[in-house]
Amino acid sequence: MKKAILLISCPDKRGITATITQFIFQNNGNIIHADQHIDEQTNTFFMRVEWSLDGFKLSNKEIPVVFSAIAKKFAMKWDLNYSDKLPKVAIFVSKQLHCLYDLMLRYQSGQLACEIPLIVSNHPYAQKVAKQFGVKFYQFPITKSNKLTQEKKEIALLRKNGIDLIILARYHQLLSGKFVNEYENKIINIHHSFLPAFAGRSPYEKAFRKGVKIIGATSHYVTAKLDQGPIIEQDTVRVSHRNTLNDLIRKGEDLEKVVLSRAVRWYLERKILVYNNKTVIFD
Amino acid sequence: MKKAILLISCPDKRGITATITQFIFQNNGNIIHADQHIDEQTNTFFMRVEWSLDGFKLSNKEIPVVFSAIAKKFAMKWDLNYSDKLPKVAIFVSKQLHCLYDLMLRYQSGQLACEIPLIVSNHPYAQKVAKQFGVKFYQFPITKSNKLTQEKKEIALLRKNGIDLIILARYHQLLSGKFVNEYENKIINIHHSFLPAFAGRSPYEKAFRKGVKIIGATSHYVTAKLDQGPIIEQDTVRVSHRNTLNDLIRKGEDLEKVVLSRAVRWYLERKILVYNNKTVIFD
Amino acid sequence: MKKAILLISCPDKRGITATITQFIFQNNGNIIHADQHIDEQTNTFFMRVEWSLDGFKLSNKEIPVVFSAIAKKFAMKWDLNYSDKLPKVAIFVSKQLHCLYDLMLRYQSGQLACEIPLIVSNHPYAQKVAKQFGVKFYQFPITKSNKLTQEKKEIALLRKNGIDLIILARYHQLLSGKFVNEYENKIINIHHSFLPAFAGRSPYEKAFRKGVKIIGATSHYVTAKLDQGPIIEQDTVRVSHRNTLNDLIRKGEDLEKVVLSRAVRWYLERKILVYNNKTVIFD
Amino acid sequence: MKKAILLISCPDKRGITATITQFIFQNNGNIIHADQHIDEQTNTFFMRVEWSLDGFKLSNKEIPVVFSAIAKKFAMKWDLNYSDKLPKVAIFVSKQLHCLYDLMLRYQSGQLACEIPLIVSNHPYAQKVAKQFGVKFYQFPITKSNKLTQEKKEIALLRKNGIDLIILARYHQLLSGKFVNEYENKIINIHHSFLPAFAGRSPYEKAFRKGVKIIGATSHYVTAKLDQGPIIEQDTVRVSHRNTLNDLIRKGEDLEKVVLSRAVRWYLERKILVYNNKTVIFD
Repeated sequence: MKKAILLISCPDKRGITATITQFIFQNNGNIIHADQHIDEQTNTFFMRVEWSLDGFKLSNKEIPVVFSAIAKKFAMKWDLNYSDKLPKVAIFVSKQLHCLYDLMLRYQSGQLACEIPLIVSNHPYAQKVAKQFGVKFYQFPITKSNKLTQEKKEIALLRKNGIDLIILARYHQLLSGKFVNEYENKIINIHHSFLPAFAGRSPYEKAFRKGVKIIGATSHYVTAKLDQGPIIEQDTVRVSHRNTLNDLIRKGEDLEKVVLSRAVRWYLERKILVYNNKTVIFD
Repeated sequence: MKKAILLISCPDKRGITATITQFIFQNNGNIIHADQHIDEQTNTFFMRVEWSLDGFKLSNKEIPVVFSAIAKKFAMKWDLNYSDKLPKVAIFVSKQLHCLYDLMLRYQSGQLACEIPLIVSNHPYAQKVAKQFGVKFYQFPITKSNKLTQEKKEIALLRKNGIDLIILARYHQLLSGKFVNEYENKIINIHHSFLPAFAGRSPYEKAFRKGVKIIGATSHYVTAKLDQGPIIEQDTVRVSHRNTLNDLIRKGEDLEKVVLSRAVRWYLERKILVYNNKTVIFD
Repeated sequence: MKKAILLISCPDKRGITATITQFIFQNNGNIIHADQHIDEQTNTFFMRVEWSLDGFKLSNKEIPVVFSAIAKKFAMKWDLNYSDKLPKVAIFVSKQLHCLYDLMLRYQSGQLACEIPLIVSNHPYAQKVAKQFGVKFYQFPITKSNKLTQEKKEIALLRKNGIDLIILARYHQLLSGKFVNEYENKIINIHHSFLPAFAGRSPYEKAFRKGVKIIGATSHYVTAKLDQGPIIEQDTVRVSHRNTLNDLIRKGEDLEKVVLSRAVRWYLERKILVYNNKTVIFD
Repeated sequence: MKKAILLISCPDKRGITATITQFIFQNNGNIIHADQHIDEQTNTFFMRVEWSLDGFKLSNKEIPVVFSAIAKKFAMKWDLNYSDKLPKVAIFVSKQLHCLYDLMLRYQSGQLACEIPLIVSNHPYAQKVAKQFGVKFYQFPITKSNKLTQEKKEIALLRKNGIDLIILARYHQLLSGKFVNEYENKIINIHHSFLPAFAGRSPYEKAFRKGVKIIGATSHYVTAKLDQGPIIEQDTVRVSHRNTLNDLIRKGEDLEKVVLSRAVRWYLERKILVYNNKTVIFD
């Protein structure tokens, strides 16, 4: 079943839901999911609506044309996607491969509705994984001096492949502001701590030294500020004085995989809206 | 701000959401929350919609009259409530008082939007709690022979006080089918296990003997079948071989309080819909 | 059954456990619990051993005399307690009373093996709770100018009552370094965030603004540095964009109660050892 | 560092710990971990002690000879292992490969201290995984009529390879009593429910129909009674009315991987003791 998914945000006002659902109904659409939220502090309305295109009177090309009139009336920011057009995803990774393996296995088993044409790394280690899953691999070694040049090549590669989403699956290189701006709210990172605690380098070491009783992992959109972008998902696991630093890393890696893959799946299913450096997750 | 809350279930069909939201919009209502769900197996549509009555064109008396035409068209089961009419709640309890205390403290601190005019018990122990919180206390000792007679008196008391919801806060008496039917989906029980495991008597003892590594608590609507009514909420906590039976009881009691109070709050906020012996929780 | 509980830390070395357990065995003690831990980084040995005093050859007065020779040999820091001597506890509280109620109800139901002779507050609100549970109440209003004078009176009161443990059950006043030093590792605070995230004032507001997907609570010993003392226990609960600030507070309060009471219980059962600003919890 | 690990259970009595730790100390061993537990109901003593063999006066062959005298005195059941002898593991799997992949990746990354010489299946699908990780693959198709014959061949294969532990990583065939008895407490199964709820076939379907709000996974030793062996580990995850059966399966698979791998790691680290159809986990 082909479906359309519409994500909307706008100032709250009487009649928004009625107008949108009428638009779908009058064009013979059947709503499969509809979810809305109002942020009371900023009086902002958010909506995600998913409807079947079986028998819908408008073609994929006509829908945005007709809908833009409604959007204009309510000053909406909106994003329209179709379930039959799979997003294209690039995975960036450094030395640790557990998140990469996890994503590729989920991809292989059909959990992730996307195409993954390529894997990028500053190291050679992920090449074997790429090969195993039949995905192209590109290595861009990064040094202090070549960073911006390499990024240019990476961006060219991403553009050429029509990449919609970049996943930083334990990619231990800071992206430049230019890179981040080109893919605003389209780069998902996994940070191996419960943010905002232990941002930056070596979060497991910091957590170990601090003696916390619970550790966490956080998936978030990447912004120019390190580890401060909108949080998409977090999860935690209990640790104790018996756990060594290696135990924390092992336990944490299990969290990272789950927390990153949830964020990716939500992105691919168009369930995430960003506002005020926070996220609405219509799950 | 006065609000109306409408809970709906009906066979799914094009145009339901559009019709309901138009009804609210055309009468000048402002939707505050709207949530819907479709059960794909039975093709059933569920909705909860909450709107502000400030400036609404219809009075509380007119709303159901006008809405019943819409409801008829879509063969809806529906339930309409107003935020300014507080539900009346009776708490039933036996010897363990932790859930009772917990509910009364939440009530006192304003977490539970209801009135609690009375506490009922088959034992005298809860009397002091009732007194402390200024609530009437009624003791109905239950024996094998007097059960139905006592229940009649209880039902008379509940009717007289216009009780909308009965909470079994560790009330260790089976209610008769007659009692349960009179208050269908209006009796919430806390069972001290992760149902369907360890239904019936002594669930902590059973969990201890079984050697489970996690215990749970379950709040559910009471039906004629013991511990088999629609589950509203569950939660779990980790235990280990170091935990004695008393540790399980202590840990479990903390769960019971939280799990029961969530179910009660959701009920009072009209967030629960029942179908197929399961619940939809619009939280 | 009367029991002795010994907490030990010292540089790790061959023969420590053998020596301690021989000491107990040769004096006809029966070990009920024994737990040990070695911190590999600092090569420090920790032990908690609990044995029955039924038939033990040494009296309560003789035990420390005899044991001090062993302790000296291994350069042990040690702490010996007897189960028949209940610790004396003072609870400090400000306006929010949920943790106080929770502690008093657990105390009343026998979960906390201690005496609670007094409640202290800078506000009058807790007086009714103190009265209800038959505990003395002392109000010490705090202003910028009278703080140290009031603390002196508080310390005098604590000394006079032989207080072993001070619980800050949402007491919103900084204690002076002098106060803290007098009760080193004897003051337990509950902080309403997942430390080290959101230390200091208004953690729920900070968490809400940050858009975290999980909130937490942390119980810790109080040191001169605000919210930086050794962490005893933490727990977390999931939140979403649907939760208002008030929802976070409500959910968080349930965590606070559980997390604080666990720390208190472990303290009373002599299960906590502190080193390097971290804790070993022999649970 | 070479280490010895001793697991003990026996009737509780004064002096057991003292005797064991003296034995290690007098032979110049350094205890790295020691953990003990007493089951109060049956008055049974359990201990796990791990010590460094650097400079130990007894050889690996002498240790059990000397220790057996102590063991006899206290009527101990005991199990002695050395860290330099890696257990040999066989993985059995049917069609679902997520647990197999997860175990092999952990094995590859060094999380599991064992050798995995072979994978067995009643289906051909796991062959590619075996090949990828360089492990031998044996297919034994099972029908009603050939079951016992095939099991004989399997047992011969296991014996020939000196297999110590069999992991049923979603192996959907009942093992015969003969097979189970030959590998008592040496077969670990993952069941995709929170046992004892939803034992037997199709647990996700059952959980979905029941409308539980939390699902779980359970790793346990296999006994002759289906899904009733001693529970080693469990974990749970929240589900809601929005989750389809496929969502439950997806969420559950993440649990299965974590819960099974924990049990396997604990087994390999000799941290599990079984008594009364329950487990003591010295983690």
